[in-house]
Amino acid sequence: MQYHEEGFRPGDPSLHPALEGGDAQPDKVDVLIVGCGPAGLTLAAQLSAFPDITVRIAERKPGPLEVGQADGIACRSVEMFEAFGFAEKVVKEGYWVNEVTFWRPGDDGSPLVRADRIKDVEDDLSEMPHIILSQARIHDFYLDIMRKSPRRLAPCYNRELLSVVRTDDPDFPVTAEFSCHDEDGKTETIHARYVVGCDGARSRVRTAMGHALKGESARQLWGVMDVLPRTDFPDIRLKCAIQSASAGSVLIIPREGGYMVRLYIELDELEDGERAADRQVTPELLIAKAQEILSPHTFDVAEVAWWSAYEIGQRVCDAFDDVSETERGTKHPRLFIAGDACHTHSPKAGQGMNVSMADAFNLGWKLAAVLRGTAVPLLLDTYSEERRAKAQELIDFDKDMARLFSAKPKNAAEAELFQKYFQKHGRYTAGVETCYAPSLITGVPQHQALAKGLIVGKRFHSALVARLADAKPMQLGHVLKADGRWRMFLFANAGDIGQPDGPIAMLCAFLASASGPVRRVTPPAANIDSVVDVRAVFQQPHREMNLGGLPALLLPTKGALGLTDYEKAFCPAEGGPDIFDLRGIERERGAVVIIRPDQFVAQVLPMDATDEISDFFGEVFTAV
Amino acid sequence: MQYHEEGFRPGDPSLHPALEGGDAQPDKVDVLIVGCGPAGLTLAAQLSAFPDITVRIAERKPGPLEVGQADGIACRSVEMFEAFGFAEKVVKEGYWVNEVTFWRPGDDGSPLVRADRIKDVEDDLSEMPHIILSQARIHDFYLDIMRKSPRRLAPCYNRELLSVVRTDDPDFPVTAEFSCHDEDGKTETIHARYVVGCDGARSRVRTAMGHALKGESARQLWGVMDVLPRTDFPDIRLKCAIQSASAGSVLIIPREGGYMVRLYIELDELEDGERAADRQVTPELLIAKAQEILSPHTFDVAEVAWWSAYEIGQRVCDAFDDVSETERGTKHPRLFIAGDACHTHSPKAGQGMNVSMADAFNLGWKLAAVLRGTAVPLLLDTYSEERRAKAQELIDFDKDMARLFSAKPKNAAEAELFQKYFQKHGRYTAGVETCYAPSLITGVPQHQALAKGLIVGKRFHSALVARLADAKPMQLGHVLKADGRWRMFLFANAGDIGQPDGPIAMLCAFLASASGPVRRVTPPAANIDSVVDVRAVFQQPHREMNLGGLPALLLPTKGALGLTDYEKAFCPAEGGPDIFDLRGIERERGAVVIIRPDQFVAQVLPMDATDEISDFFGEVFTAV
Ligand SMILES: Cc1cc2nc3c(=O)[nH]c(=O)nc-3n(C[C@H](O)[C@H](O)[C@H](O)COP(=O)(O)OP(=O)(O)OC[C@H]3O[C@@H](n4cnc5c(N)ncnc54)[C@H](O)[C@@H]3O)c2cc1C
Ligand SMILES: Cc1cc2nc3c(=O)[nH]c(=O)nc-3n(C[C@H](O)[C@H](O)[C@H](O)COP(=O)(O)OP(=O)(O)OC[C@H]3O[C@@H](n4cnc5c(N)ncnc54)[C@H](O)[C@@H]3O)c2cc1C
Repeated sequence: MQYHEEGFRPGDPSLHPALEGGDAQPDKVDVLIVGCGPAGLTLAAQLSAFPDITVRIAERKPGPLEVGQADGIACRSVEMFEAFGFAEKVVKEGYWVNEVTFWRPGDDGSPLVRADRIKDVEDDLSEMPHIILSQARIHDFYLDIMRKSPRRLAPCYNRELLSVVRTDDPDFPVTAEFSCHDEDGKTETIHARYVVGCDGARSRVRTAMGHALKGESARQLWGVMDVLPRTDFPDIRLKCAIQSASAGSVLIIPREGGYMVRLYIELDELEDGERAADRQVTPELLIAKAQEILSPHTFDVAEVAWWSAYEIGQRVCDAFDDVSETERGTKHPRLFIAGDACHTHSPKAGQGMNVSMADAFNLGWKLAAVLRGTAVPLLLDTYSEERRAKAQELIDFDKDMARLFSAKPKNAAEAELFQKYFQKHGRYTAGVETCYAPSLITGVPQHQALAKGLIVGKRFHSALVARLADAKPMQLGHVLKADGRWRMFLFANAGDIGQPDGPIAMLCAFLASASGPVRRVTPPAANIDSVVDVRAVFQQPHREMNLGGLPALLLPTKGALGLTDYEKAFCPAEGGPDIFDLRGIERERGAVVIIRPDQFVAQVLPMDATDEISDFFGEVFTAV
Repeated sequence: MQYHEEGFRPGDPSLHPALEGGDAQPDKVDVLIVGCGPAGLTLAAQLSAFPDITVRIAERKPGPLEVGQADGIACRSVEMFEAFGFAEKVVKEGYWVNEVTFWRPGDDGSPLVRADRIKDVEDDLSEMPHIILSQARIHDFYLDIMRKSPRRLAPCYNRELLSVVRTDDPDFPVTAEFSCHDEDGKTETIHARYVVGCDGARSRVRTAMGHALKGESARQLWGVMDVLPRTDFPDIRLKCAIQSASAGSVLIIPREGGYMVRLYIELDELEDGERAADRQVTPELLIAKAQEILSPHTFDVAEVAWWSAYEIGQRVCDAFDDVSETERGTKHPRLFIAGDACHTHSPKAGQGMNVSMADAFNLGWKLAAVLRGTAVPLLLDTYSEERRAKAQELIDFDKDMARLFSAKPKNAAEAELFQKYFQKHGRYTAGVETCYAPSLITGVPQHQALAKGLIVGKRFHSALVARLADAKPMQLGHVLKADGRWRMFLFANAGDIGQPDGPIAMLCAFLASASGPVRRVTPPAANIDSVVDVRAVFQQPHREMNLGGLPALLLPTKGALGLTDYEKAFCPAEGGPDIFDLRGIERERGAVVIIRPDQFVAQVLPMDATDEISDFFGEVFTAV
């Protein structure tokens, strides 16, 4: 953590000094967020990092979520939490999914045997584990960030969105009307520059946008319960997929705290027009079903902490903003939707919360950049483009996944196939396979060979390094904070130690020169790393480096006090595997890796690609 | 983290349900703590774990510490923080001391060269790093634990202890009088079963006890300042010992946040009767001195965050309780002192805060056990015994350390000696060398060969294992929570997988049998692990084990709901180094390791040493 940059301040460094009057709740705001689920809170936490942006977040319910709903947190989401600054809390409180076992009737006629046992997450897929933790706790952590932000952002509870319309107002072109549940009958009107509907599967913002949900009309009924069990089933603390001979199947997900488990029980498909409530599912029914499936193992329930029965359709919305295909490029989007408001799918792959947060993380920095005037307005069109493609892929994957869990390999060859299949899907559910297509903010990967393991369009894959100035072993990816900044990692070639006239020094001089792509986009009074943060990774052990000899851009003077930032240069971690090897970086040539504010690799370029760097930033940024 | 044991409870698992009326501030308490420094807060946090113990903690100052004082947190203290549940916060916010460099005039006549550069902490000395973080933040973390405890314990500020006396009251035999600074003139009287003076170097509780401080009267004057520097000194983000040719020496300690550093500057010795204030030290003087020493490097100060000039005598108190040598064994101690109240020494080795916290950690569980009636009263005598020996050792070490920092190796052989010397001292300052002598609670190490790396009398040295039930890779030492429980680790022999009639199963059956040492000390209605928590470590990979086949003591049924605790059995970590190898555990015979509530190894025994185990616990515990 870096702090005291603007002078010493005692106390909790994550508690930002309050902006005077910053916690006012004006009726004209930059961004209005509807809904306090994972999507809405991710967006609110992201926007709260910018004191110059005003935000309202409204929620129909009377207060924060306390129990239930999603619990699966993919590795990729934990990486994102690290960027927000609370990964360590999730890792501490949550259950770690380390292995998965598969149970089915044995070939010898025994009712249930452990047929397979595999690692849940491949080695070096992510520096973070796969976690199970209540959605309510994730909400708490986001709320904490908002509360500690300069504006002390807090949700407005008891506010139900009634309608949202675009108007001709040039400054605040969207008007939203709310009913205030705590002041009966009263309505409240909010004017906003942008409105984001994070209002779940029955989104009113989506309805207002006029797009349709497309997909299967067949809807699966699911039962889910969080229970404190008493059982002699030996894998009760492992994630298990259990297929009984004739009683159906259950997915067991151990929960945080060491005692609780979640069971997902697939029920029947609903008929047309039928709703989940019509089937009169009860916890007793779910327990009985679980007992049947797990038999001959005992399975008693000491307490049901939460349960639900719900229907799932696999659907996705046409577009995630209020611009139709024909208007794209000519009309500027003002309404957006994120999370369940855009897509619905089964909970089997544990993607609901993760994909919803990823939607919002994709949108947040873009809204901030356009509102703050640093990026071109066209940037906002990339949101719907990128995330709609992802949602479609998820729906397809979800169908695959359903097949996967009911697959029964019949021989060794089939079992191997199944294993491979599961591994591929493991990467996908870990959230690290998302790959954005070339666009304004993602380059065409012509130089991918320079860094084979840092794929253009995918999230930056972290690895261990040593920080030069203080020899600290750390994950390089953990410098990618959720602060709206772009980043460039300059991977030095074998001979380069940052010496004057070396490739790193020359590139740094170019980037920071008066007409250089970094300097040009940085406001004159701001720190040189405030818009694009440049860091370098050298191949030499840190003890062989000369810190003082680094180019100025890698030892920048910052803040009102003119202090030096010593955290821009890195070397291979001692003893650990070398990041150049791990990520396939060309040792002879080095590589420039441009990273978006949402941690996705925007481009990989050679060290001398000054024109390409200028062009890339030239298109995204408005020069200052 | 284990929670939901007594039923599902939403929200922050570290926030305990409040005890009704638990936050009352009665004038009769079990323990009165005087002083809110690191010693007082460690003790208060420890005691707050027991809802049945009433505590007051009084502090003269009007509120919590905000700046300054100690900042060095040894690996051992971070291990202890893990037991209290906040290590991850310290590791996140703090500066990591990874390397130390030594600067002195060069042989070639250059004024200052980097003569040595070494690792600060040996590999596998501790699973925790050496951290620098403001004492004020450590206070905050303790206060947070207290605030979340069942009694919502909070300090009484503005209370200055005036006097403390032993009375004839059989129940509350100590009376303490306070002046209330916030209600002028008012005094307050508190009656307590025990009073612990954590009231610093000028302790009134110590005075009341009638013991003398012994040691050198020569007192060294020290200047210390936390500054935001502007400098071209390249090692400003490394811990450095710098000896100039003639301007004196300085110790640089980089601080948390990436910008601040602390400088310790040795000033002159004070004459008899002289006080620090007499020398009129100013920050300007300290800065000028630092500039002189660091020359020819530039060194400007943008801001002084905190500074102090203080005198240090190397002294230690005769005894740490109110029992004289002649009374020992016949008189029960009622007054104790901990921390700076018992010992003072230079800040060079960075031990002040660490040793003070370790004092309190040693005392806390003992007070709790005697108050709750689980242990014999004699247990309290071991506090003064153990910690006084430690303090004396520290004083001796402190003198050594002073020599170390002024040593100037003249050739390669001397340099190597110096390196070795530093390594030895590194272990000491890391806090892991404390070794308690045989006593009521520390056995005579007759079977040390069974576990060569788990030294009787030293803290349990953690290593990576995999938890059997959920395959989680984790540090075995992290199950040693600060909850007042004793623990036994049963390291299985090579063939033992917990099968019936195997050594582990037989020992477990014995321990839990009606007259067994674990059952005998456990109240009938309490969980079987509530006084002595037994865990096992097997040699087989976890995938080759059969969880269901474990003895009942390793799958205990707990709480009102009768849930199974699945976290008692461990296996070697996959891929990682094997704990049996790392800690030198006899594979053919296995070993029983008994661990005290403060994480110290009490005894190492063979698997069949049922009598020795019974005898050991029989002496410490009062049977229920
Ligand atoms: C009852 C339930 C059970 C679930 N169980 C599981 C599960 O077992 N496993 C799993 O993986 N996923 C589960 N999910 C799905 C998972 O919770 C979602 O995928 C995830 O929460 C999506 O996040 P979101 O922010 O997009 O939407 P949501 O979390 O649905 O948040 C939307 C928020 O908007 C609010 N809102 C809606 N309309 C309005 C309005 N007009 N005005 C103001 N506020 C409004 C809602 O009250 C809600 O707080 C469940 C969802 C629900 C609702
Ligand atoms: C000004 C100062 C600067 C220091 N600087 C350094 C440093 O640079 N490096 C370093 O390693 N160590 C430093 N130390 C030492 C380090 O802070 C101590 O070793 C450590 O705090 C000891 O902890 P403690 O809890 O025993 O005592 P303290 O931290 O001294 O706490 C004692 C507490 O008791 C309170 N108290 C005292 N008398 C009474 C009374 N009669 N009634 C009620 N309350 C009372 C005090 O106000 C204080 O809060 C410094 C200490 C001080 C005081």
